[in-house]
Amino acid sequence: MDITPFLDKKSKTPLYEQLYIFFKQEISHARITKGTKLPSKRRLSVLLGVSTATIEHAYEQLTAEGYVKSKPKIGWFAAGVEADFPAAPDYFQQSVQQVLPEENAPVIDFHQGNVDPARFPFNAWRKSIVKSLDRYSGHTSGDPQGEPELRRMITRFVRLSRGVICEPGQIMIGAGTTVLLQILCLTLKHGTKIGFEEPGFHRSRRLFEANRMHVIPIYSDEEGVLPGELKAQNPSLVYTTPSHQFPLGSIMTITRRQELLAWAKEANSFIIEDDYDGEFRYSGQPIPSLQGLDPNGRVIYLGTFSKSLLPSLRLSYMILPPALMESVRKNAHLMKQTVSSHSQMALADFIESGEWQKHVNRMRALYRKKHAVLLEAIRSELGNSVEVLGKNSGLHILLRLLFPASEEEAISAAADNGVTIYPVSPSYKGQPPFVSVLIGYGGLSEEDIRHGIQKLKTAWAPLISSY
Amino acid sequence: MDITPFLDKKSKTPLYEQLYIFFKQEISHARITKGTKLPSKRRLSVLLGVSTATIEHAYEQLTAEGYVKSKPKIGWFAAGVEADFPAAPDYFQQSVQQVLPEENAPVIDFHQGNVDPARFPFNAWRKSIVKSLDRYSGHTSGDPQGEPELRRMITRFVRLSRGVICEPGQIMIGAGTTVLLQILCLTLKHGTKIGFEEPGFHRSRRLFEANRMHVIPIYSDEEGVLPGELKAQNPSLVYTTPSHQFPLGSIMTITRRQELLAWAKEANSFIIEDDYDGEFRYSGQPIPSLQGLDPNGRVIYLGTFSKSLLPSLRLSYMILPPALMESVRKNAHLMKQTVSSHSQMALADFIESGEWQKHVNRMRALYRKKHAVLLEAIRSELGNSVEVLGKNSGLHILLRLLFPASEEEAISAAADNGVTIYPVSPSYKGQPPFVSVLIGYGGLSEEDIRHGIQKLKTAWAPLISSY
Repeated sequence: MDITPFLDKKSKTPLYEQLYIFFKQEISHARITKGTKLPSKRRLSVLLGVSTATIEHAYEQLTAEGYVKSKPKIGWFAAGVEADFPAAPDYFQQSVQQVLPEENAPVIDFHQGNVDPARFPFNAWRKSIVKSLDRYSGHTSGDPQGEPELRRMITRFVRLSRGVICEPGQIMIGAGTTVLLQILCLTLKHGTKIGFEEPGFHRSRRLFEANRMHVIPIYSDEEGVLPGELKAQNPSLVYTTPSHQFPLGSIMTITRRQELLAWAKEANSFIIEDDYDGEFRYSGQPIPSLQGLDPNGRVIYLGTFSKSLLPSLRLSYMILPPALMESVRKNAHLMKQTVSSHSQMALADFIESGEWQKHVNRMRALYRKKHAVLLEAIRSELGNSVEVLGKNSGLHILLRLLFPASEEEAISAAADNGVTIYPVSPSYKGQPPFVSVLIGYGGLSEEDIRHGIQKLKTAWAPLISSY
Repeated sequence: MDITPFLDKKSKTPLYEQLYIFFKQEISHARITKGTKLPSKRRLSVLLGVSTATIEHAYEQLTAEGYVKSKPKIGWFAAGVEADFPAAPDYFQQSVQQVLPEENAPVIDFHQGNVDPARFPFNAWRKSIVKSLDRYSGHTSGDPQGEPELRRMITRFVRLSRGVICEPGQIMIGAGTTVLLQILCLTLKHGTKIGFEEPGFHRSRRLFEANRMHVIPIYSDEEGVLPGELKAQNPSLVYTTPSHQFPLGSIMTITRRQELLAWAKEANSFIIEDDYDGEFRYSGQPIPSLQGLDPNGRVIYLGTFSKSLLPSLRLSYMILPPALMESVRKNAHLMKQTVSSHSQMALADFIESGEWQKHVNRMRALYRKKHAVLLEAIRSELGNSVEVLGKNSGLHILLRLLFPASEEEAISAAADNGVTIYPVSPSYKGQPPFVSVLIGYGGLSEEDIRHGIQKLKTAWAPLISSY
């Protein structure tokens, strides 16, 4: 029998993975029957024009998973598959593609959600993790609100670093901000009027929409959301990012914060303060959080450890005003706690030991440096063909394009030159008033930042010169 | 901790006094704990944009009043104060209460969700965790569907142990079954007709209801849900627990499974197969999962590591039929991945190394033994005053009360004697046809099981003798 796999050399799926899938399917469909000798590495490499190493890689994977048996010096043979298991239909093939890891092209990725892993104190973190594994059995799913020890730690540091005033009982731990917003949504009536910064954080807006909330754009100026807009619309809830507006990067003034709070009291509405990267402020007076300025319990504060620790930790928290605690807690019980209690206890230990604060301070200095490198690179490479927005804080900036190119053109030109930058238009419900792109730098080295901006210059040169 | 006082420069109160008041409060409330080094004059003056003289003035005032101790050439340190945490406002008390750890009364808790931590291979697990911390940077939030490596491992073992046929691309990892059901709900229209086993797993039913689905009770007999019921109601989706009906404990017969699948194909509906503890079967023929019997891609399979590993791990998975993959994947992106990629990679390693299978086998033997101990204790202590339901599988049984007591009476009498048992009525949308209580034993030692049932006898004696 002549076995001929068909490979797609243009596909993102590595060739060895394509081979692996082919044989796995053929064998589990019993189209290649038990005991059949598979083509030799050499023969197949000639037949397909790929290296023998590629074929060996695939055969070894298949052997490891039991689809193939190797007989030293003789070759590879199809193994039998349990007869009582029906084979997977072909239409599953397509799904597999999506799963296989893409080859690491040397792309410079300016994703705003990434952080710098190089400086992460893995040793200290490992200590905290191991400690919590040694101390806690984890034989229950844990407190639906989150471990009390961690909530106490959070109570302390949000007060000292962000001026947030709360008791541990107001804190809800969750596996990401969207999980916490989802729990909140379960407590809201359908079609609840939700004012949303325009532009604003698209994932949160889409979550509200997916939950059938009535989302209304609230326009802002450089000081923050416009109180007039709120008075006109009177939403029951408004979503804001005061310490670092997403995506514009502006910091809401103290006056505007007080106007916002006055409106919320007056309208008996609530404000969501998403403080997604408030730890990283590079210049200007610290401004206390909305929550800390609010004597009337109208603010829902959202914080995360994705930026200040690791995105992969998936640990965020929501601080609720007393009026909402009961109803939200009910839905937290429904969902159960979504973060491993071992991770929570490790983090509590990590904070108590001072390691977390040390890390945040280190990273603040590091990011400030990268931030300066980025701005300098933009100034020298892109000069007056762009304008930088949102310089004072956080882990991303906006580049406003002063040359006549569309967002899509700018991004695909960058992609063609090995740089990934991100669109701003999804953050708008309506039409963006100007063309800009999102540049995150937290996850890149200073060298990659410089290199990436140089590549941008090359990528955009034709677009710039064309006007 | 990063200590950031917030000053109001417009206020009539002098800046040094504002600083003084801030530190006085923080220290006397022990939010700045004894021995904490206060920021240096220089650092604070830069941070706040005020003169060092102002800060010195405040610090000297604090020193004079004993809130602060100054160590020449080293700095200022918070002094200890007797006054402990401030009394929280009344409306916080109750919330705070919930946060304080309960003192361990020697209560014997028959919670069905708990597992036996004693035999958990913490050393092997720690190895896998440390390995994944050493290997992966975790600087992104990870694949929204879950790490490919873990999904490959799951594909392999569900095929071998449960007869579930899938590709990694169909698997969605999430922090608990309810999170995955929530993601599924976001893809369903409002008021979607959902057939739900009556009785059935109340948390899942309440989640559907919280998402405004139209939930219809589907009645069962000892073989499983009644196909006639389904044909009459024709829901778009039906939720079942075929390998161990919750709470009744029956195992759905192969005939009934085939009828169910025939209906789903005919009605073009989907079936949720929640296999929450399918790993633990003590007697009877193994029956392949619904998913494995289904050639038409109508089954959504739910699995979890809460029972077979640790509830606190918060790691479950959903295996989707191809027809649903695209829409559900969209909402998974919206929610982002909810499980730490380090935990996922640790689990993948734990499974690949064979440790997980070893553990499941150990636990199956262990639980079989406990199960026998429980049944024997019930027979000898409670004799014919109760009937045991659902003996063949899983980590819980039902005790049907053959004496005239209400569920509430039986449970509170037990509580008065230091035994926690659980109500069955919440699993019913309607009225339970008979009085029974839920007894989980996974988390208890054999001794505690015996002891607990003895206490039950004592607790119920008056109720039993009274008829």
